[in-house]
Parts: sequence; C-alpha cells; structure tokens
Amino acid sequence: MATVVTMQEALLALTTYWTERGAMIVQPFNTEVGAGTYNPATILRVLGPEPWRVAYVEPSVRPDDARYGENPNRLQTHTQFQVILKPDPGDPQEIYLGSLRALGIDIDAHDIRFVEDNWASPALGAWGLGWEVWLDGLEITQFTYFQQAGGKNLDPVSVEITYGIERIMMALQRVDHFKNIAYAPGISYGEAFGQAEYEMSRYYLDDADVATNWRLFEDYEAEAKRCIAERLPVPAHSFVLKCSHVFNVLDSRGAISTTERANAFGRMRALARQVTGLWSERREELGYPLGQVEPAPAAATPSTYPEITEPATLLFELGTEELPHAEVRRTAEAVREALVGKLADTRLTHGEVRTYATPRRVVATIETVAPNEPDAERTVRGPRVSAAFDADGNPTKAAQGFARGQGVDPATLTRVEQGGVEYVAAVRTDVGRSASQVLSEVLGSIVAELRADKNMRWNDPQLSFTRPIRWLLALLGDVAVPVAVSALASGRTTRVRRTAEEPVVTVDSADGYLDLLRAHEIMASPAERRERIVAQASALAAEVGGRVDFEGEAALLEEIVNLVEYPVSIRGSFSADYLDLPAQILTTVMRKHQRYLPVRDAEGTLLPHFVAVADGACDHELVRAGNEAVLRARYEDAAFFWRADLEVSPEQHRAGLAKLAFENRLGSMAERADRIAHVATELGRRVSLDPDETATLTRAGELTKFDLASQMVVELTSLAGTMAREYARRGGETEAVAQALYDMELPRTAGGPLPETKPGALLALADRLDLLAGLFAVGANPTGSSDPFALRRAALGVVSVLRDRPDLAPVTVEAGLAAAAERIRAQGVEVPEQALAEAREFVVRRYEQQLLDTGNEYTHVQAVLLLAGTPARADEALRELARRTSDPAFADVVTALQRVRRIVPADVAGHYDPAALTEPEELGLHQELGKVREALSGDYALAEFTDAAGALVGPINAFFDAVLVMAEDPAVRAARLGLLASIRDLAGPVLDWDEL
Amino acid sequence: MATVVTMQEALLALTTYWTERGAMIVQPFNTEVGAGTYNPATILRVLGPEPWRVAYVEPSVRPDDARYGENPNRLQTHTQFQVILKPDPGDPQEIYLGSLRALGIDIDAHDIRFVEDNWASPALGAWGLGWEVWLDGLEITQFTYFQQAGGKNLDPVSVEITYGIERIMMALQRVDHFKNIAYAPGISYGEAFGQAEYEMSRYYLDDADVATNWRLFEDYEAEAKRCIAERLPVPAHSFVLKCSHVFNVLDSRGAISTTERANAFGRMRALARQVTGLWSERREELGYPLGQVEPAPAAATPSTYPEITEPATLLFELGTEELPHAEVRRTAEAVREALVGKLADTRLTHGEVRTYATPRRVVATIETVAPNEPDAERTVRGPRVSAAFDADGNPTKAAQGFARGQGVDPATLTRVEQGGVEYVAAVRTDVGRSASQVLSEVLGSIVAELRADKNMRWNDPQLSFTRPIRWLLALLGDVAVPVAVSALASGRTTRVRRTAEEPVVTVDSADGYLDLLRAHEIMASPAERRERIVAQASALAAEVGGRVDFEGEAALLEEIVNLVEYPVSIRGSFSADYLDLPAQILTTVMRKHQRYLPVRDAEGTLLPHFVAVADGACDHELVRAGNEAVLRARYEDAAFFWRADLEVSPEQHRAGLAKLAFENRLGSMAERADRIAHVATELGRRVSLDPDETATLTRAGELTKFDLASQMVVELTSLAGTMAREYARRGGETEAVAQALYDMELPRTAGGPLPETKPGALLALADRLDLLAGLFAVGANPTGSSDPFALRRAALGVVSVLRDRPDLAPVTVEAGLAAAAERIRAQGVEVPEQALAEAREFVVRRYEQQLLDTGNEYTHVQAVLLLAGTPARADEALRELARRTSDPAFADVVTALQRVRRIVPADVAGHYDPAALTEPEELGLHQELGKVREALSGDYALAEFTDAAGALVGPINAFFDAVLVMAEDPAVRAARLGLLASIRDLAGPVLDWDEL
Repeated sequence: MATVVTMQEALLALTTYWTERGAMIVQPFNTEVGAGTYNPATILRVLGPEPWRVAYVEPSVRPDDARYGENPNRLQTHTQFQVILKPDPGDPQEIYLGSLRALGIDIDAHDIRFVEDNWASPALGAWGLGWEVWLDGLEITQFTYFQQAGGKNLDPVSVEITYGIERIMMALQRVDHFKNIAYAPGISYGEAFGQAEYEMSRYYLDDADVATNWRLFEDYEAEAKRCIAERLPVPAHSFVLKCSHVFNVLDSRGAISTTERANAFGRMRALARQVTGLWSERREELGYPLGQVEPAPAAATPSTYPEITEPATLLFELGTEELPHAEVRRTAEAVREALVGKLADTRLTHGEVRTYATPRRVVATIETVAPNEPDAERTVRGPRVSAAFDADGNPTKAAQGFARGQGVDPATLTRVEQGGVEYVAAVRTDVGRSASQVLSEVLGSIVAELRADKNMRWNDPQLSFTRPIRWLLALLGDVAVPVAVSALASGRTTRVRRTAEEPVVTVDSADGYLDLLRAHEIMASPAERRERIVAQASALAAEVGGRVDFEGEAALLEEIVNLVEYPVSIRGSFSADYLDLPAQILTTVMRKHQRYLPVRDAEGTLLPHFVAVADGACDHELVRAGNEAVLRARYEDAAFFWRADLEVSPEQHRAGLAKLAFENRLGSMAERADRIAHVATELGRRVSLDPDETATLTRAGELTKFDLASQMVVELTSLAGTMAREYARRGGETEAVAQALYDMELPRTAGGPLPETKPGALLALADRLDLLAGLFAVGANPTGSSDPFALRRAALGVVSVLRDRPDLAPVTVEAGLAAAAERIRAQGVEVPEQALAEAREFVVRRYEQQLLDTGNEYTHVQAVLLLAGTPARADEALRELARRTSDPAFADVVTALQRVRRIVPADVAGHYDPAALTEPEELGLHQELGKVREALSGDYALAEFTDAAGALVGPINAFFDAVLVMAEDPAVRAARLGLLASIRDLAGPVLDWDEL
Repeated sequence: MATVVTMQEALLALTTYWTERGAMIVQPFNTEVGAGTYNPATILRVLGPEPWRVAYVEPSVRPDDARYGENPNRLQTHTQFQVILKPDPGDPQEIYLGSLRALGIDIDAHDIRFVEDNWASPALGAWGLGWEVWLDGLEITQFTYFQQAGGKNLDPVSVEITYGIERIMMALQRVDHFKNIAYAPGISYGEAFGQAEYEMSRYYLDDADVATNWRLFEDYEAEAKRCIAERLPVPAHSFVLKCSHVFNVLDSRGAISTTERANAFGRMRALARQVTGLWSERREELGYPLGQVEPAPAAATPSTYPEITEPATLLFELGTEELPHAEVRRTAEAVREALVGKLADTRLTHGEVRTYATPRRVVATIETVAPNEPDAERTVRGPRVSAAFDADGNPTKAAQGFARGQGVDPATLTRVEQGGVEYVAAVRTDVGRSASQVLSEVLGSIVAELRADKNMRWNDPQLSFTRPIRWLLALLGDVAVPVAVSALASGRTTRVRRTAEEPVVTVDSADGYLDLLRAHEIMASPAERRERIVAQASALAAEVGGRVDFEGEAALLEEIVNLVEYPVSIRGSFSADYLDLPAQILTTVMRKHQRYLPVRDAEGTLLPHFVAVADGACDHELVRAGNEAVLRARYEDAAFFWRADLEVSPEQHRAGLAKLAFENRLGSMAERADRIAHVATELGRRVSLDPDETATLTRAGELTKFDLASQMVVELTSLAGTMAREYARRGGETEAVAQALYDMELPRTAGGPLPETKPGALLALADRLDLLAGLFAVGANPTGSSDPFALRRAALGVVSVLRDRPDLAPVTVEAGLAAAAERIRAQGVEVPEQALAEAREFVVRRYEQQLLDTGNEYTHVQAVLLLAGTPARADEALRELARRTSDPAFADVVTALQRVRRIVPADVAGHYDPAALTEPEELGLHQELGKVREALSGDYALAEFTDAAGALVGPINAFFDAVLVMAEDPAVRAARLGLLASIRDLAGPVLDWDEL
C-alpha cells in the first residue's frame, strides 16, 4: 500500500528526487501559463545543443476548465510537476518509475502503463511522441520525447515528463473531489485554494471584460513584436504567453468568433516561431554557455564473428520502449519481411522465420540456420586474349597484372567469349561467410532501416523509429551474434518487467527463450495473449451472468492485446445508476478512454461491469478500486454533460455552432452546417423523395450537426450523431429527424454501417461533399500521410453511400461536388474548377482502391471507372463484367468494339451521311446499328447493351473484311468513320472497352 | 564553517525546514510581484482571525533594479523566500535562527544581529515593526511583525520573514557577483539566468513601450474595479499586482511624471484597500474555513506572595526581542521613573533604584527593599456622637453597625470633631503588605503600561510595546516575586545568548546577577559596553596608526552601544582605491548602512580601515571577511554611482528633477526647485548683497537641489548638498556656487552647522519656507507624531538661520512665507491666508520651544515672542532682558509701562489732540513723550528704548497720581487715553511688557 502523503510532501518528494538525479530546480513562471511546457525552462531550453536537466512545479491555468470548484476533477488552475531531461538519458522510463516510488506509490502492486499519446502544438511548431502514463487506468503523467519546436528538429531530443499532481493525489489519498486532497497537514486543498478556485472561475466564465481582454491581446502582441525586433526572445516569449492567456480567457467567456480564433492563432503562431528562432540564434551568439551535448558514441563494429558449426536457431530480440499498439503487429510483420528478403540476398540457408511482438519487444526466430554460406565460384573477365599472351604464348604484363589483381596464378587463367571477342578470365571462389557474420549484417541493417508510421529520434545518433530502441539480443543457438548499429550493440541479455527484482536477464540459448519470457510474465505471442484475455474476460463476465462481445469489440481487443506483455484481467463494476445514460456513452468511455471490455447480458444489454486488462501481476483489489474510481469520475463527468446538454434545446445547440471554428477560410461550423443543409436539399431535389422524407430532410437540415456544440460531443467527439439522435429525440423531434441526424455521420469507418434513411444519406453525402469541395478549394488537399481533415475517409464515405444507394444515382460525384462548390462560392470563397476536378479524381481513386482491395480484377476495375461518378452503376457494370467474363459471345462483342475503337481517331464525331455509304457491308452495318439503337432503352447499361450489341458483331466483322475505311473519296471516308464512331459512342457510356 | 550549498539546495533546505515546522508550502504567484509580501498568501492571508503558516519562494521583480546583469548585487528579478507565521509562535526569532543552521550557516561563528528596520506600504495601508537580520553586516532577511494591512489592525499579528536568497548565497559561497553563485551542481546563476537578466533589463530600461504600458495600466485597473464590484477579491488582487508591475516598468523607463505618479499611486491604493476589505468580508461570509486563532491565555494572577524577612535587593528583568537602539536607553529611564513613582505611592521603603538595558533586556535593581510595608493607622469617621449613644450611653444600632462594619469592638470607638460636630470614629490599622506583593503589583503595572515611540502587538492578548516582551524575571534576594501581566508570568530564569548551549539560565539571587550575565557574555550596563568599545576600537585603530574620532561619532557610538549585548570590535579594511571618493560618501556608507567606526590618521584623514562591532564571541576572521565583503559591495555601488553621476552635468541632473515627485498638488521636485530659486532671489532683493553674492545666488538658484537627481543621492539621501558641492565643483561651477548649494541644505539637525554664505543662507531659508507654506497650504500640517515632510525640522531651520544672521533681518518669517506663498500661488495652488498664519505660528512655537529648551526664563521668552518673526531681534531683546533683569531702573520702566497698558483699552489708537490736555501733569507727560520720541533712532530696540524711556517713568507716575484719565468730558478723556496709547505704541514693538 502507498503511504498517504500530503500534496506538498509529494511536491517536495519529487523535487528532492529529481534534484538527486541532477535536475536543476527552477520556479514556476511568473505569468499565467497553460502548462509547464510553456515555461521558458522547457519550450526555449529544449532548443539547441546545450544540455539541460530541470524540474519545477507549474500551476497551470486553463480558464476553460473553470467550474467554480464544483466539478470534482476540473480546476482552472491545476498543478503540474514538469521535468526536462536533455539529452535523453537512455533510461528515462526507469528513472520516472523511481520517482513514483519516491511518491510512495507501490509500483509492484499497481498497474502502471505507458499508453501511446503524442503531443503536438501547431501553434508552436512543436511535437513529440510518447505516452500517457496510467496508474490503474488513471492518466497521471504525460511522457514525451520532444522532436520539434519552433518548426525545427531538436537535436538532442529532450524527454519531457509532466505529472498531474492533483490526479495523483486524489488517487493516492483515495478522495473523490480535489477539494478533499490533504494539501498540508491539517489543511485540505479546498480550504487552501477553494476561494481562489471559485473566484477565478467567476472571472473566467462570467466577469472578464471582453473588450478589455481583446485590448490586452493587442497590446501584448505589440510588445512581443517590439521585443522580437530588438532581438529579445525572453521578454517576447513572456508576452506571447500573456497573449495566449488572455486568448484563453476570452475563449472561456465564449467571446471568440471563428474568424477571431483563426486570426489570433495565426498571430500567436507567428510570434512563437520568431521567438524560438531568435532564442536559438541568441544562444549560438552567446556561444552556448551551458556547453553542447556530445552525441552517444557509435558501437564498435564487430571485428570477429564466432564460428558456428551446426545449424542452429536464431533468436533476435529488439527491445523498445512501449510501442503504440498499432505498431506492435506491424513491426513484427515488417521485421519478418525484411529478414526473409535480406536473407534471400545471401547464400545462407535457413528454416522458417517467425516473429512475435509485445509493446516492449519484437522477437524473430529462424529455425535451422546453416552455420555458413556455401562457397560460390565466380568468373572474372580479364584482358583480350590477343593482349594476354605474347608471341611465345606467355602471359603478358597485362595478363600477369590481372591475375595478380585477382589473386590467382596466371597459369590458371581460362578464356571466355563475349561479343565475339575472346578474353582471358579468372575463376574465383567466393568463400561463404559464417552465419554469424551474415546475420550480424542483416540484423544491423534491419534495425537501421526500421521505420513506422510516425518516427522519432532519441539519444541514438542515427536511429529513428516510432519509439526508442533500447537493446538488441541476438543468439544463434547459444552463441551470441555481434550486431552493432549506430550506438547499439547486441548482447545476450533481455529485459523483463521493469519492476522485477532483476530486470535484466541473461538468455543462454535461442531455444527455450519464449519459455524463459513466460517465466518472467511476458507472453511474446499476441495470439497467446489474445487467447488468455478472451478466456479470463469470459470467465469474469460469466461470474456476473454476463458475456463479452469479442466480435463486436474486435478492434478494442486487438488494441488491448498490444497494450500488455502479460494480460491480467480484472473485473470492475460501476453504479447501476449510470445505466440510465445512453449505453453508447458508457461504452464509448470504456473503450476510448479506458480500454475496458464492456460486459453485457445475453440480450446484449449493458451490465454495470467491465473488464480491465492489467499488465502483469498486481494487487487486484487495489487495481480494481483504482480503475473503478477512474470510471466513476468519467461517468460522473458524462452524467454532468448529459444533464447539462438536455437543458439546452437542439436549436440552441445549433446556434452554438457559430462559436466553433471549422477552417480559417471556410468559416465556422455553423456556416458549414448551413452549407450541408443547402446542398442536401439541392441533391434531394434530384432524387425522388416522398413528402415525409422532404419534411425530414428540411428539419434535419436545420439542426445539422447541432450536437457538435453539446458538452458531451465536445468531450467525446466520436459520439457525434449518436448524441444528435438522443438529444433530438428528447428535444421533441420526430424519430425520422433523429435518425437522419444519426445517419448523416455514417459511415464512421470504412465498412461501417451506412445511413438507413434517404434524408440521412443525402445529409451524409452533403457533409462529405462540402468537406471535399471546400478543402480542395482552399488547397488543403491531403499530402503524403497528412490528412488532418480526414478527406480520405470523407471520399470513401461518398463512395460507400452512393454504392449503397442506387436510388440516389442522379447524384453523381461531379454533380454533388458542383452543388457543394456553389454554396461555398456563395460564401465568397473561390472554388477553382481545377480543384473540383482534383476532388473528383481523389474520390475516384479511393473508389478504385476500394474495388481493388475487395479483390476485383484489375482490368475490370479500370473498365468501369468511367462510371465512377455514379458508383452504383459502376458496381453494376463490374458485376456484369464478372458474370460475362467467360462468355464467348461477350468476348466477341469486346473484340469487335475494340476493333472499331482502334481504327477511329478520337476526334471523329459519331455521325455520318448514310447517303455516302455504298458497299453492302457498310450498308448492312448501318442498318443493324439502327436496329440496335432502336432496341436500347433510354437508360441502357452494360447488360442491355451487350445483349443488343451481339447483333453487331457479324456486321462489324463483315464490314472490316470488305470495306476499306480509309477510302480515297473524302466523303466516303468520312461516312465510314462516322459509322464506326457512332458504334463507338453507343458503346462508350457503358464501359471502358479498351481496358479489357 | 558553513557547508557551501548550491542555491537550489538552499531553497530546498528552507522549504524542508519550514515544512517540518508546520508551514504550508505554496507556489510563487503567477503574475509579476515586487516582493513575496504581495503574494496573496501573505497580503490577504494576514487579514482576519484565521491561522496561517506558509512558506514559499517568490522571484521578485523590480524593474528599477535592472542593470543588464552587470551590477554584482542588483537584479531585476531576485529570489525571496517568504515565511508567514500567524499567529506569532512566541519564539519566531529562535525558529528563524534554526533555519539559518539548516542553510548550513554556522551561527556560532558568524555575527548575526537583529537591527531595527520597520516596514510600511502606505499604498496598502500596511505597516509592521521588525528588523533586518545581519549576517556579518550583510542584510540577509527582513523580519517583520505585521501590524496593519488595508488600514486595519491585524489580530492576530503575523510574523513575516523574508530571506534575500541571492545575498545569502553570495555570502555563503563567498562570490562577488550574483552570476557566480553556484545555482545547481555545475550550473552558475549566470549560466542559468544571465540571458534573461540581460534581456528583461533591456525591456525594462530601454524597450518597453510607454503608451502600451499605460494602456495596460488602465485596462488592469478597469478589470480590478470590475472584480471588486462583483465581490471577487482574488482576481481583483491579481489585477492590482499587474497595475503595480506595469507602473514599475513605466517608472524604470523614466516615463512617470509627478502628476502621473501621484495619480497612479492614489488609484492603486484605493483598489488595494477595497481588495483587503473585500477579502476580509468574504472570509467572514465563508465562516473562516481555516478556523480562528485563540488568543494566548492570561497568566494566573498570583494567589500567594512569599514572605520576606530581611531587607533584600530587587532584581527585575524584562526580556524583549531586539529593541530599536534608540529605545534601549529610553526604556531603561522610563522603567526607572515608573519604579520610583509607583513605589512612592506605597509604604515600601527601599534604597537606590538603578536600571540598565541592552537590546534584549531592561534590568532594574533596587537596593535594600524592606521586607514589608509598615503598618499604618487610619481613623474612620462614624455617625454623630449624638446618634451613637442612647440615653444610657450605650452604643446605638448605628454605632454598633459602624463598629461591625469596621471590624472593631464598639467599646474601642473614639471621637473626632469635624466642622464643629462630634462624631464617633474607629481607629484602624492598615497592615503593611509584604514587599513581594507590593512589587508584584508595581512591576505588573509597569509592564502593562510600558510604551515606546512606536508600539506593536505580538501574540500577547493585551501588551503593546516597541518589540515583543518575552519573559519576566523578578527576584527579591533569592526569593522569586510572582508577577503576572496579560499572558506573561515571571520566573527565576533569564535568557542568555540564543546560540548558547543552554540559552535559558536560572538566576539564584538578585545579588550577583550582573556578574552572572557577564559570565554569559552579556553586559547589562551601556556605560560598560561603551567603555569596552572605546578601548577595543582605539587599540585596533592604533595598530594601523589610526584613531577613532569618538567625539565626532558620538551618535554612532551611542547607537552601536545599544545594538549589542557584548561588544566585540573587529577591524576590517577596504581597498585604498576607494579613498579617491569623497570621504563623506565613505563615512556615510559606514555609518548609515553598516554602523562601522571610521578610522582616521592624526590629521583626521580617512584611513582604509574600519571597526565593526560584533555581538558576542565569533570567528573574527570569518566576521571580518564578511563585513569587508559587504563594505566592498557597497563601495563598489557608490563608486559606480560616482562615476555615472560625473558623466552628467549639474544642469542635466537639474533637468532630471522633473521626474522626481515632490507632492501631489505641489508638483515635481523641479517645480519646487524653481520656486526655491525664485523665493531666494526675492528675499535676496531685501538684504544687501554684493555683486558676487548676487551672481552666486542666481547661479546656485539655477542648480538648486540638482543632486537629488543623482544616483548617489537617490541611494544615500543624507548626502544631498554634499554631493551637490562635489559635483558642482567638478562640473566647473565656482567654489562660491558649490558652497551655496552645500549651505542650502544646512542645518541638517537641530544645532548642526549653519550656512556659511549669504546666498546659501537665503537658499536654505527659501527651501524651508517653500516647504512650510506649501504643505500648510495643502493641509499637510504635522499632526501628533506624524510629520512626514519633516516640517518641524524645516521650521527649526528657518529659525536657526535667521537667528544666526542678523544681516538677514529684513527677511521676517511672515515676509518669507508670503514670498513663498506668492510663488506657490503662481503655480495655481491656492494658499489661504489662514494657512500662512498657521505656518507662522508653527515656526514661532518651534522658536519658543528652542528658547525654553536652552534655559531662558519663561517670562522673558514670552515677552520677546512678538519679535519672533525676526528671531535675531528677539534674541537681542532676550539678551537685553537678561542683562537688565536686576536693574531697578528697568523695573520702574516696566511698572510704569504696565500701568499705562492696563488702563488703555486695546481699541484706543495712539494719537490725541494735545490741545485738549490741560493739567500740568498731562502736559508734562506730553512734552516728555515728545522728547523721548525725538531721541529714539528709526530702528530702536529694547536697549535704546529702555534707556530713553527711563525719562518717562517720573512723568507717567505723576500723571497717574494727579489726573483722572476717565474725565467726563469726552474730548478730554479721548486726549488723555490717546496720550497713554501713544506711550503704549512707542513701547509696543520692542517687548511684550505685560509678560514680565
């Protein structure tokens, strides 16, 4: 059990702990800051080459979190304890865990985890990768490897550790309101700071004068600029912070319009970048008073490689700090592919390659690796024979030199012929390398080349990966394979749980390694972990008469599997009172925030239980209690939002959208909602809607996206649509309207559920079309992996809805984008046609990819893409193609049409003067074409056309056999080409025949 | 020796120390503050009845101290460590000394002292009494008993302890520049904060935009007002601090005019008072969440008093915290007087009463105190005899009741006669009280009634004195006398040096007490301490061939005597280079700041040595080194000012006066200097000046008070005039002008040197007349003990100069005030005649007091006061009076004139129609009067008049013998009265005859 300390003892303990680890202690900044990061001791000091190790308390002011001291977990000023380690000391997580012990936290009993959480402040041009640290499910610390600041790569990288002190104290002291924290002996937090919390909340939420604060913003900005002009980054930074604070005050007063927000952010960003740039310059000018960090030395390249005598198993372990869950599987796969590929480039033979991964390690094993590469012979060409031997048949100097160079006796030179010329040649034996050498090189290059979706730097001078790689273990049987890459050298030890008595363990042999890990509570195999979780969770759920819907929670399960090395499932409960809230709220909180598995009864109804999966042995009671407390706090928040939201009508929420920014040039979320409603109505006019549907569309349009202004959705964005439906129902809207508002957010993911209703589908389309048209118009196209507005998902959404609803066929992608563009233009934003064309192309490419991903034949896909503007039609053509693909009659049609298309230049129009036709074959074709055309309906597609066009195959072939298309008489030639072009044009709309 | 710790270790050590003593730790305030006092954890929390014990670090921002990081001792941001103990724990000094030990300071080896230093912030309506704590002469801490805040008495009183961390670190680490402080292991202060120090200095001194910062001031004030209106003292306070900071920024930019300063101060003061008031109200409304301090319980009143059998010596010791040096002697005297007086009211007989005092104790001894008061008989009157006995001569009920009431047998009643009536009477014996009872009461009342010039409260519920009284010791011989007053009860222990192994020592007997103290390094007798200092310092000076001018340094010596309990003189030296500075600078620094005795050679020339007087045994080398370092730093500052000032011409300095505030309505110091120059010139026209003097007056007038703008005088105000002379000489002015500028600041003290030159005297007069006329005009008259503008001294100055210079007689006080008033009016300030009359009266009263204080006879003083407007004349009259006081002829004149004056009503004018005179005696008087008038010069004074008036004595007496003044004929009566009135008027100007 943790010793319960007061908050001030905790701060003192942390101060002492970090002082003892060489951190300098500074004071909180003397102007309001939103987080310890903005103290110059962090945001400026992480720049440049100087070492810096600092720790400090930072009362962090977030006006937006002001709650008059009433909310148990939110404060306008909360206390951060901030640590910067520059450079990365190589074991910052271990040092950090020591600090938790110093706080009196029994880290053996608690479940402590590093859960992916990255940080970015576009305003500061800053970002980093790292984790939130969980204590029994409670986020107590942000842990970040700072990668960029002021838009500049940081070298060396800094480790930033930010403790949330109030949360830690509430957990340690087991109190459920921050006011009850024992701050000092005999004084509670509420007694000490309650009045300030209330009064500052009043100021931030109710009383701050808007005009005055705007004036302050202007004045601070002016002073910041003046300081920058004078090359004074320190005071300039302080004024940027003051700008930021009054901006936050204005924001919490609800006084910031979209335009103002965008404008203010732009101005602060510009200032912040100048400050960081200037600071870097000034430090350089000052000659780096604190010195410069030396990069870690490179590991010595192996000079000898152990001899291997028998085939043996390779064990390769790459030890990391906690990988993001999505990277666990991906990395294992990447390592496997790289191993297979790279070994294929050598002559080393081996058995099966397997990889496993946990958050902290990627493991590869290769069976029966040969002890050596076999030797290989190689012939090297030398001089021409004519120059290689003198008159006496003795080798010339040239030949002797060649032989010497190749290390062979001139007498052994042979001859080869090349291009009719005869050369001398040396036959050389490439001696096979030892397996240890080959593997050393291969493994080193794999580590060096390993990359993830997002990569970072740490204290290694060259490596880059999603998280730091801290150790390498390579064994061939029981022989260590020396691998050196950048500063890393492999050894024969692995690392087990950080809380183990001996966290570093020697591995004797590759065989038995997995069992060794298991003995140390590590399951390398994800499948094994999954199995264990399913078994444990099922049993725990069954104990309370419930079950876990593992199928429905597949993504969550996959995530949990890759969040732990050794799953320990623990069932917790929550008050049944919360079941009054919509279930989706409860499950969303469980999944998104806590990664808990919901427990349901046989009918699928939520039970007041959950399964949390801890990592490794722990005190179950303690961990359960902790997790329950976290969930309770989150549900309390949600219940608060739910009640507060219900006091506001959907219309009022809708009006609130005016305060939500969408995009600088495209205006507020209210303007976007207006556009969506208009576009949906416009599209609705093109399809058949019954009066009810029309009324629903109109009303749902009026409320479009209103729930984005609700507190619940602000907090849990994934509940957009869900909350709209709930709040609309309770706000007296019809079920149809409520459903349409729900539908319009669908699909949420590729392959996810689609809108059930036509009004909903129209709104969903309008939503995504507005997004695409608007962002392409302002040049915010996705580039590379950057897609901040999720346009890929929007495009897939358009395609999915249109594919799902042939009844919306009159709505093409082009028409939809045009309608969206019209509304955007009405708002005064230029939408170039070129941008719309690019947007269409972007949608089509997503559709194409979707078709290919689902296994359609490449040529078929290409053949139907001309119909992609109406995906339902393209789908139909694709199905038709698949059906007829082995039909010889269809093949004939295709051949005939392709013949036609080949001969007709693209610029020939599809009409002709029949009077100019004279040959019987051409007249026959003309007549048959007339019949086919007459037979076709007004809206023919591939099937109908193909059936009808069968009749043309004979006449076409006859025409080509008998008629010279390129007749000398221009009139005749024109008529013949026109006849063929007419056939081409008749076939054109249904398929891209050339692609078959 | 002190362990050298880094600055961050020191902060941590203090934090830990105070945490262990129950202090809550809070964070520095998150807006710029000038001192830890302004953090709400002090300035708001000292209000009201709640207990509060807090400690925190406070980086304190003083833009005015910005020096680009170049000055070794001044920083725009320095680090305070602040402690508040509420209530006063009773031993805060002892606890504080423990914190110095915690810092690694060897308090046994160092010389640590509590030197009077009080604190007041009129802007906050706050003040307190306390000390600066010296470490070997270096001020390292401010220690204050907070008495008022927001204009309200604080109950309970808080102890405020403010450590100056950079200074402490520089002393502990023995570095001579703040940049060289070891801040953290391997990081110096300069490395960590040097850039910020430079850049913030740049902003504060050079780059802050004046208009912007004024706008910020306005906006902050507006927000503060808004918060006050909403009853939110916490945010309001933060805005007051922001106002204060930008005001300081504007000030350091030199951008504050006098009017602006006064105006801004007024506004901030108003806000601050509202904030403190509101905070108090809000805490009360909240029901004092931290509880309420219980007052210390009263000591039990003694119920029995020990029997004393033999005459014995009384020892009474009243133990205090360090008294202000001026109170040491004064308190000893007050206690002696009170003892003598109060014992006189008892029947207790005793021998000589003696008192002694040190900074920490007042001691009284009384020889041969009788063991008891003698019994005394007392007759009590009863009923009339007629009612006391019945017909049988037996006592009536009335007599019996009387006897019973008096506790006597009716048979013992006697008789007394009163007013011719006979009464029965009882003779009662008042049994003398024991000496212990009498002394208990007397001593208790002395303690309860003890008051000083400025008094304070501490944790005692009733007592009030200049510093806390912490213990009482009362012994009669070897018997303890119980004294109880408020919460204090006497005992038989004394306290010796705080660093002693046993700081509390039992005293066995009154006799031998002084020796006991001596054995513990305490000399109770100031005379003994003085002797020791003189002996030690003389010897030390002689070792370097010098001497100490004890006569010239009498005031300083007196001060030093009362700053220590056991003088230990230590000689230190400074670099002879500093001797290039004017000696007065060097000695002023030594005296005012450091209380060092200067060492001079036989000619009186300063030598580079000084004698510091430590208190008690210490490590001489350590203490010497510390004191030398302090003096070096101060001289370095002074040398810096000296050089900087010399780069500015007197004219430029003079122009700088525009930035110095004088008084709100009376404008800047420049305006005052202008007025002084004008008035001096105007007065100069009335006296005789040769052309050189006129030129000197003109030029000196142009430069009047220019040195007030010099850095040296800003730092050392007592050098005003001295620096003017130095800088004027070096600025190319004539010696006469330089001397006039020096002279105009004279006299500095009552009895101090007076102006040597006439132009200087005129300027000195004009200076003081302007002060008097101006401040009386705006109603800033001195009241009670409050005389912030030192008008008493100004009035005495006027009198002293005028008395010293009969050649300035045409300048009367009235004329001078009128001339001053004219200039003030020219500036648009109203000067009521009534105010001028009061000012004149104020001057006359000072003069009167001066005359009485120097032993003149009361009646003589009263008699000459009508000449007080020209004190030189009044002085002359006084001398004449003294000379003639035993001359019978003079007495006749006086008698005759008094006779005249008695009979003439005040409203009778001094003219008459001689034709209406008929009687020979009246005609004789008329003729004699004519002769006397003719004989008198145009400017006759007392001597001349008296000599001449002797001739009138006979005729006057003859007139009264023969003539009826009040004749029936109105014309005759009028002539007779007119004749007498003429004599009265002739005599009137020279003396107030009635007073004799």
